[in-house]
Amino acid sequence: MAWFDRTGKDSDVVLSSRVRLARNIKDYPFAPMLDETGANEIIEKVRSALDDYSVTDMRTKSHTERRSYVEKHLISPAFVNVSTPHVLLTNEDMTDAVMVCEEDHLRIQSIHAGLALREAYSAACAIDDRIDASVTYAYNEKLGYLTHCPTNLGTGMRASVMIFLPALTQTKVLHSYASQLEKLGLTLRGMYGEGSQAKAYIYQISNSITMGITEEETISKLESVVNQLIASERKTRENMKNDDYDRMCDKVMRAEGLMRSAYMISSGEFLKLFADVKLGVDLGIITDTDDKKLSELLIGAMPATLMLASSREGLSDAERDKLRASYIKGML
Amino acid sequence: MAWFDRTGKDSDVVLSSRVRLARNIKDYPFAPMLDETGANEIIEKVRSALDDYSVTDMRTKSHTERRSYVEKHLISPAFVNVSTPHVLLTNEDMTDAVMVCEEDHLRIQSIHAGLALREAYSAACAIDDRIDASVTYAYNEKLGYLTHCPTNLGTGMRASVMIFLPALTQTKVLHSYASQLEKLGLTLRGMYGEGSQAKAYIYQISNSITMGITEEETISKLESVVNQLIASERKTRENMKNDDYDRMCDKVMRAEGLMRSAYMISSGEFLKLFADVKLGVDLGIITDTDDKKLSELLIGAMPATLMLASSREGLSDAERDKLRASYIKGML
Repeated sequence: MAWFDRTGKDSDVVLSSRVRLARNIKDYPFAPMLDETGANEIIEKVRSALDDYSVTDMRTKSHTERRSYVEKHLISPAFVNVSTPHVLLTNEDMTDAVMVCEEDHLRIQSIHAGLALREAYSAACAIDDRIDASVTYAYNEKLGYLTHCPTNLGTGMRASVMIFLPALTQTKVLHSYASQLEKLGLTLRGMYGEGSQAKAYIYQISNSITMGITEEETISKLESVVNQLIASERKTRENMKNDDYDRMCDKVMRAEGLMRSAYMISSGEFLKLFADVKLGVDLGIITDTDDKKLSELLIGAMPATLMLASSREGLSDAERDKLRASYIKGML
Repeated sequence: MAWFDRTGKDSDVVLSSRVRLARNIKDYPFAPMLDETGANEIIEKVRSALDDYSVTDMRTKSHTERRSYVEKHLISPAFVNVSTPHVLLTNEDMTDAVMVCEEDHLRIQSIHAGLALREAYSAACAIDDRIDASVTYAYNEKLGYLTHCPTNLGTGMRASVMIFLPALTQTKVLHSYASQLEKLGLTLRGMYGEGSQAKAYIYQISNSITMGITEEETISKLESVVNQLIASERKTRENMKNDDYDRMCDKVMRAEGLMRSAYMISSGEFLKLFADVKLGVDLGIITDTDDKKLSELLIGAMPATLMLASSREGLSDAERDKLRASYIKGML
């Protein structure tokens, strides 16, 4: 099952954990210089190394289908607009995926529900080993794995968690955490990573440093910081609840009421309501839904995934907002 | 059954119809000069004339109980603060009532659900006749019934309808009607009559003239104007619905959703939501509630009636808002 169809550890705060490895194959130029023949050769090598994986030729997919992959965090936003041949390989659960011919030749990723960085890391390494057995990676003793962008040199690894921090955000405590994270070589970003905005109090925290540090150290550091954030977020939520229980109750119950009743919901409003409802569920105020359903909803209500599921691409904004409201109502 | 527990004619626009007759008894001074003995004598006369009516000594009632009578339109706001003996007589259905020793010695009223001015007028006249049979009214050939306030001289009759005009208000058409009404000797006021504000698009329309016009002419004129307003309001509602069905659907469904889900609702917010929900019901968008339930809700959610029904007087605002939300949820 995909990460958004199940609940993981600490799901009240951590939505998902992901490890991504950037790899390039020796003797082939980096993506911008890679020609069609080269790209096809690389794709073929990876396909045969991972012969039990499903292969999706991205160029055969509609824009909406590609956007839906982004919404599910299966591919990067950049992968939508690649012009040379590029494919996505996925395991049955869609937890493990390899983008072939993105910015780097390979972007291996494993994504899991809740706080599961080690699980994600092991899975990514297992894929890495399988591919490594049949190709030679571009590797340099001093620089480590060679990557298109110098910020990935070294381990080529980006470990991240998608984290829901409504209480720390609203009390402005998160602000002071952000600079501490930076000093630790970690970055706080929006829901869809670099350049994206935080919505519904959902952030991505990932390592910003890939050189001079081992994979194990990176994972440990991130895990420890996330555990601190979880504790701090939970305590702050309880304080908020105790400080003004009536107001909080009213807010989360209204949000759920609007989700159940509205005839049209924009994705912006949905994310706002989502945040209130999730907080209500996690504080035990709302009991007739759960984190699992909410994760499913979070992805299912996104524009492309929503349209795709109903086989209705190219809807007007108003039609899409009606479809979203009806989908949410059906889910709750 | 009281007017708010049933549905009458044209209930999508007209909530209730009321006829009130002001009468004074010969040889007794008007209320401000009336002493306790005089007041008690008058009360006794009316009691024996209407011996099948329930008698409520207002001075034995708590402030909340008296406020609740006002909310139900059974007594005038002024009747809450009378200091001399004053009683309310009511028939079993609470449709007919006589305030004894308000501004005038007698304020006879009959109030019915929907558009039922003639029904209300007949009922008020029947009470008037019964009392008239055993007392002598203060009456002057030239001035008609003598009343404390000169604006009631003549027929002493005030006929009114409580009318729900969301479409005419929102499209600002009502504004132009208001001056026409004035020319016709009719007045448009807020929900609780003179000096009160229109809330939830609910107004009172009543005659402003009681001299030089018969009761029959007054009722006919008011009825004809109300019928025009009903037709105009209905047409405007349909136009609004056709012009932007999605937006209207969304608005009314959200209002109902909030009524069903909120943990706290102030009376001000309730009236706003009420207006949207009633419009939704009357346009057939909301089908799981009806005008009868809404009329009951409109009165039941008012502060005093609400507290009285739960035997919890003297609640804080927050407690009352919680009680209101829970009452509304239970009703829908």
